[in-house]
Amino acid sequence: MTPTAILPDASARIAQVLSERDATIPAEWRLPKSFSIPQNTTSILRTSGILSDEELQLIDLSALQLAKAIAERRYTAVQATTAYAKAGALAQQATNCLVEMFVPEALERARRLDDILAATGKVVGPLHGVPISIKDHMDIKGHESPSGFLCCVGESMADEDAHAVGILRDAGAVFYCTETTNPQSIMHLECSGYWGATTNPHNTKLTCGGSSGGEGAILGFKGSPFGLGSDIGGSLRSPAANCGIYTFKPTAGRLPKGGMRSPARKGGYEGILVTHGPMGRHIDDLGMYMRLVLSSEPWRLDPRVLYMPWREVTLPRKLRVGVLRDDGVVRPVKPIRRAMAHVVDRLEKDGRFEVVEYAPYKDKEAWDILRRLYWPDGGKSVRHLLDRSGEPTRPMTEWIISQSEGKEMDLAEYYSFVNARDELRLEVAKHWYAQGVDVVLGPVGPTPAPLLETAKYWGYTSYWNLVNYPAGVFPTGLSVVPGLDREDPQELYHPRNQTEAYILDTYASTTHVDAPICLQVIGYIGYDEETLAAMERIVEAVGAPQV
Amino acid sequence: MTPTAILPDASARIAQVLSERDATIPAEWRLPKSFSIPQNTTSILRTSGILSDEELQLIDLSALQLAKAIAERRYTAVQATTAYAKAGALAQQATNCLVEMFVPEALERARRLDDILAATGKVVGPLHGVPISIKDHMDIKGHESPSGFLCCVGESMADEDAHAVGILRDAGAVFYCTETTNPQSIMHLECSGYWGATTNPHNTKLTCGGSSGGEGAILGFKGSPFGLGSDIGGSLRSPAANCGIYTFKPTAGRLPKGGMRSPARKGGYEGILVTHGPMGRHIDDLGMYMRLVLSSEPWRLDPRVLYMPWREVTLPRKLRVGVLRDDGVVRPVKPIRRAMAHVVDRLEKDGRFEVVEYAPYKDKEAWDILRRLYWPDGGKSVRHLLDRSGEPTRPMTEWIISQSEGKEMDLAEYYSFVNARDELRLEVAKHWYAQGVDVVLGPVGPTPAPLLETAKYWGYTSYWNLVNYPAGVFPTGLSVVPGLDREDPQELYHPRNQTEAYILDTYASTTHVDAPICLQVIGYIGYDEETLAAMERIVEAVGAPQV
Repeated sequence: MTPTAILPDASARIAQVLSERDATIPAEWRLPKSFSIPQNTTSILRTSGILSDEELQLIDLSALQLAKAIAERRYTAVQATTAYAKAGALAQQATNCLVEMFVPEALERARRLDDILAATGKVVGPLHGVPISIKDHMDIKGHESPSGFLCCVGESMADEDAHAVGILRDAGAVFYCTETTNPQSIMHLECSGYWGATTNPHNTKLTCGGSSGGEGAILGFKGSPFGLGSDIGGSLRSPAANCGIYTFKPTAGRLPKGGMRSPARKGGYEGILVTHGPMGRHIDDLGMYMRLVLSSEPWRLDPRVLYMPWREVTLPRKLRVGVLRDDGVVRPVKPIRRAMAHVVDRLEKDGRFEVVEYAPYKDKEAWDILRRLYWPDGGKSVRHLLDRSGEPTRPMTEWIISQSEGKEMDLAEYYSFVNARDELRLEVAKHWYAQGVDVVLGPVGPTPAPLLETAKYWGYTSYWNLVNYPAGVFPTGLSVVPGLDREDPQELYHPRNQTEAYILDTYASTTHVDAPICLQVIGYIGYDEETLAAMERIVEAVGAPQV
Repeated sequence: MTPTAILPDASARIAQVLSERDATIPAEWRLPKSFSIPQNTTSILRTSGILSDEELQLIDLSALQLAKAIAERRYTAVQATTAYAKAGALAQQATNCLVEMFVPEALERARRLDDILAATGKVVGPLHGVPISIKDHMDIKGHESPSGFLCCVGESMADEDAHAVGILRDAGAVFYCTETTNPQSIMHLECSGYWGATTNPHNTKLTCGGSSGGEGAILGFKGSPFGLGSDIGGSLRSPAANCGIYTFKPTAGRLPKGGMRSPARKGGYEGILVTHGPMGRHIDDLGMYMRLVLSSEPWRLDPRVLYMPWREVTLPRKLRVGVLRDDGVVRPVKPIRRAMAHVVDRLEKDGRFEVVEYAPYKDKEAWDILRRLYWPDGGKSVRHLLDRSGEPTRPMTEWIISQSEGKEMDLAEYYSFVNARDELRLEVAKHWYAQGVDVVLGPVGPTPAPLLETAKYWGYTSYWNLVNYPAGVFPTGLSVVPGLDREDPQELYHPRNQTEAYILDTYASTTHVDAPICLQVIGYIGYDEETLAAMERIVEAVGAPQV
C-alpha cells in the first residue's frame, strides 16, 4: 500500500527535508551505491568496513560498561562518540531511523568531557561520555522535534532540553547524532511518516515497531547503546520486542514528562497517561536509568511526577509468575508460543519461581475503552496537522483514527469513557490479586515484528496502559526460524474474530525469518521496583542475551 | 436569607425526614423544652446533666488515649459508646449536625467488642471500642448516605462500608450514632440543606463550616473523639478551623476514595481531585489514622491509591517556615492577623524554626481556574437533583454555581482549564522552591467562622487543592475576643476588590465572639509525612491545645 493523496508541494517539501536530513550524515560514513543492503542488516556493522575492530568491541558494551570504561580511561568520550556516530549513520542507511544527525556538536561535547576528565580526574556524572539516542518528540536543546509531522519541521526548535534529556546531559551523556523517528501521529505500533518507513534491522520487510520505532531500530542495529522512548499503548514495548532489545515502561507518573511534545494531543488530556522510559541492550541499563532519574528528585521541578524515590527491593524467595498465554482476542502465533514454553520451562527448572496460569480479563472491553479514549476528538487534530502540510495520511494513521469511530465526544461522553476506564481498573486489580501473582509473563504482541502496515492489534501492550501497570520487555534469545515456526498444518484453528483472522493471516515463518522473539513482564501499578527486579531474575534464569 | 421556592410536597417530605431523624435520638437524652441553648453551646455537655462525671472525663481523651484505656480495661467499649452517644445527641440538639443516630446498633457492637476482649484478652485492632463519626457522603453499611440531597433520602442505602470506613471497622471502631451533615451539593464552606443549617458549637450565629460541617460541629462540641471528612476546596479545613479542631488533608491519591458518594459529580471527572482525611481533637490522632490506613495497603484493593506506604521521617533541625500573611485577594481580619503574629513569635523564639515571608502567587488566577473546573456542567446536575425533590436551592448552592458562570463546557474548553491548572501547578512548584521553604504557615480563611451564608471566599484553602499540596489545620488556642479583635479604626484600609469588601464587611469582633482561631500548615505535593511532622513540631512550639 502506498499513501494516496499527496499534494505536489508536499512532495517537494518532503524531498527537501529528507535531502537536508541526509546531508547531516557525514559523507565518509555513507555506504557506496554498490553496497547492497541485506534483508538482515545487522551484519553491515562488520561488513561495511567503516568501524574499526576496536570500535566494534566498544559498541558491544552496555551503557554502564561503557561509562565505566571511559571513567577508567580505557576509552575516551571522543572514541565512544565516533564509534556510535558511525554505527548510527549505518543504522540510518539500513533502516531509515533518524530525523537528524549532529556529529560535530557531539564530538565537541565529547572533547570537552575528555578535557574535564583529564584536567580534574573526575567524571561529570555516571554517564560521562556515553552517547545516547532520543526519540523525536522529546526535546533536545537546539534541535527540532517535528514529532512525526511534516508541518512541524521548521517550527519545532527546542529552546530547552526535555526534563529527562536534561538529567541525562547533567549525567554526562553525549547526544551524539540523532533524534530517532516516531511515526506520523505518534500513534502507530510501526514507524512511518514523511520519511517513508523505518524498518526492522533484523529483517527489512518487517516493521521496527512504534511509536518509539527509530529507537528500536537504532538499538537493535547496535547504533546506540541506550535511548529514551515513550509509551501510551505499547510504544516502548512494541519496538523493543520487534527489534530484540530491552525496555521498561514504568507506572505513568514515576518519570517526568516535561518537554515531550504531542502536537495532536490537547494539553489537559488525562484519558490515558503517557510515560517515557528507557530502551537498552542490557537489562542493567534499565535500572541504572530509573535510579539516575529518581535520584535527581524530578518531582521538585515537576509536581506531576510522583514523590516516589526508587526503592531497593528484595523479591520473595519464590516469585509467583502468572503465565498469560492468550488474551482471548488474538492467539499468539507459533514462535511466540514456542518462546513462552521455552521461558516457562526455564523458570520451572530454576527453583526461584512458582509458575501458574494467568487468565485474561476483559481484553476486548479494554480495547473498546482505549480506542475511544485515545481520540476524544475523533482524530480531528491529527487531520488538521496533516492538512497544514498536505502530507499524505499514512495507512496506519488512517487505521488507528478509524478505531475512534471518527466521532468528536462531548464532555459527558468523555467522562463516561474515563469512568469505564476507572471501573475496569478496579476490576483488573481485583482479578490480579485473586490470582495471587507477583508478576505476569506474557507476549508483547500476537506475532514477532509484523509486516509493514499490518500492526493492527495493540491489546497485549495497551491493556497495561489502561490499567497503568509497569511492564518490561526482554529478548528471549530466540528468533523466528522458518519451518520450526510454521503453524502446524495438522492443527485446525478457527479464528475467533475478524481481528484474529487478520493478524494470523499476516504471519508466515518464512517472511518473518530472523525476527527476534521477546516477552513481557508485567507488575502491579506502582510496583515498578518489584517488576523490574522480577524481570532481572527471569532474564537471569532464562539466560537472555545482552544484545 | 431564607430559600425562596419550595414546593408544598417538598415541605411535607422534609418535615417527615426530619421527624424520622429526630426519632433516632434516644428520648432520655433530649433536652427539656425549657432548656435554653446558649450562643456558645460547648457548656451544655456539663450543664445538661446528661453525662456523668466519669463520662465527661472519658470524652476528654483523644481517640488514641481512649483506645489505650479500653485495651487496658479502664473503660469498656459500652461505656465509651454510651458517653459519646449522649454527647452526640447533645451536639445534634445544639448544632443540628446529624443525619441519623443508631445507638442500639452501636451498643450491640460495643458489647460484642467487650465480650471479645474479655474472652480472648486481645483487642481486635488499634481502635477497639472507639466511637467514630463519619461524614454523610461516606458509606456506612446498612445506613443511608443522602449526601446533602433530599432526593437521595430513601435511595442511598449503603450495601458496603466505604473503603476507609471498612478499615476503621476492622480496627475495632464503633460507628456509634451518626453520619454527620454535609451541605446541599457538598460544595459550601458552610453546612445547610433540607435540615436547615448546621451551626457552630462555639457561637450558633456562625457557620460550622463545610462541607464536612457536621464533623466540625460534633468534634468542636466534643460529641465525637475522631471523624472522617473530605476536601476538594477546603471541606476538611474550613470546618476544622471554624470549630477549633485538627485536620489533615493529604495529597489526593494517598487515601482510598471508594464508597465516597458524589451525586452531582459525574464518574470520570478528574478536574480537581477530592481526598478524604482525618478530623480530630488531638494532633496525634491524625498521624495514627494515616498510619492505620496505609498499613492496610489500600492500593491493593484500589489501584487509584498511590503505592506510597507511610514514611517515618526526620525533619531538618531547623525547619524553614514560609509565612503567608495575605494572599493578595482578601486580607485576613484582625484576629487571624493576631494569631499569625502570635504563632510566628512562638516559632521565632523556639530555635527549631527559620521563619521567612512567603509571597502569594496568582491566587486570583487559581480561583478563576478552580471555579470553572468545579462545575464543568455549569451546575446542571445539581439543579437536576434539586428538581427531583423540589427542595429549595440554598443560597450558598446558588452562589457557588454562579461562580461557574452557569455554562456547560465542551471538551475543548474543559481541556483548556485542565491545562491551565497544570501550567499553574508547574509555576507554583517553581515559586515554592525559589522561596526554599519546607512548609508554609498561613490562614485557613480570611476570617474566623463566618456568619451564616457569607462564606464566599475559598482562596486560602482551595488554592492548595488546585496544586494538590497536603495541608493541615491546628487550633492556636486563641479565640475571638470583642474589643481586642476589633479592626483598628485608626487604620484606613481600602478593600482591593469587591470580594474583599464583601468579606471584610461580614466580620465584626462582637458577632464573632468565641470563634476559635486556627491556622494552616501546607507542604509540597506528596510530602504528607513531612507536612504532618512539621505541623506536629509547630503545635508543640505553640502549645496548641488538645480540645
